Amino acid sequence: MYSTVIDELIEKFERLPGIGHKSAERIAFYLLENMSEEEAEQMAATIVKTKKSIHLCDCCQNLTEDSLCPVCSSPKRDRSVICVVEGPEDVAAIESTHEFNGLYHVLHGALSPMDGIGPDDIKINELLLRLADGGVEEIILATNPTVNGTATAVYISKLLAPFNVKVTRIAHGIPIGSDIEYADKITIIKALEGRQLI
Amino acid sequence: MYSTVIDELIEKFERLPGIGHKSAERIAFYLLENMSEEEAEQMAATIVKTKKSIHLCDCCQNLTEDSLCPVCSSPKRDRSVICVVEGPEDVAAIESTHEFNGLYHVLHGALSPMDGIGPDDIKINELLLRLADGGVEEIILATNPTVNGTATAVYISKLLAPFNVKVTRIAHGIPIGSDIEYADKITIIKALEGRQLI
Repeated sequence: MYSTVIDELIEKFERLPGIGHKSAERIAFYLLENMSEEEAEQMAATIVKTKKSIHLCDCCQNLTEDSLCPVCSSPKRDRSVICVVEGPEDVAAIESTHEFNGLYHVLHGALSPMDGIGPDDIKINELLLRLADGGVEEIILATNPTVNGTATAVYISKLLAPFNVKVTRIAHGIPIGSDIEYADKITIIKALEGRQLI
Repeated sequence: MYSTVIDELIEKFERLPGIGHKSAERIAFYLLENMSEEEAEQMAATIVKTKKSIHLCDCCQNLTEDSLCPVCSSPKRDRSVICVVEGPEDVAAIESTHEFNGLYHVLHGALSPMDGIGPDDIKINELLLRLADGGVEEIILATNPTVNGTATAVYISKLLAPFNVKVTRIAHGIPIGSDIEYADKITIIKALEGRQLI
């Protein structure tokens, strides 16, 4: 419907997560209507620069510019606890609470036999190697409460059984601020199962 | 929270319309986690290329690669009707119906005294110049039914009064497929005012 180059730009934005055709159109028009040529060039340069300079942390596999990420290289973090998550966005979410002071391990995905994603496709081996050095007392499995995330947590907990380390799973239940009335059945069941003395 | 380059990338995406902080994070991580370096470079190149090659159509002011846009240069379009819209996305929306066969005129905004946007800041003069050539029989004012869009339609209709041309405004009313019950008061008033014999 538009000229070929605009269609191409819309198509590029459409591939990004959470961006449908309408949003992609809106972004493309914003770029063409409201951004200066300089701003557009800066945006393009940032994409290329970031992609080139970011790689995985040698220790926790999170995205970083340096060989070790800021969390792994901080002397203030508790090195006896490792929180295992699916992706860097989960690290960001947990860090934003300022309540967790341990280290992370980013798997970069979850086991998913349907999609052909097995243990060698995510960073499970790298987690086991971290235990070899000793000093780790607890592994918190904070993969998502989905089928794949739960399967991954169960798989890792079995792998960790021979190691002398406490393995825990984050709690599932009614989210704070929401209504029990609107919670789905599985969440209510998990909330009842996980009940604690007050 | 992230390394500086990731923060910079998130910030760039956050400036785009309809993208909040969370979505910007998600897009940035998608780019870093799921895109190849080649794909990221292609995306950056498309942004720069499109921005450089797109300018305004000499006739209707829509975005185009050539001196005239595909609509203005098509011999099949009815040159006696001009549909005046605020932006290129409105042209796209109307074209997607395949029901309008006239030409367009893109204002690139609406009058907005509060934001300091006056008649010289949008493409009103360019519209008047198109009438000088003659042959135009009807101007359809299809600016948005907002305060600014309506003010722009009224302003243009007054400017057009001396010309021998029919000036119309698109109909406002209850959108097809929605419930009268949920329509806002002004829409119901407009729907009643605009009632037609069946």
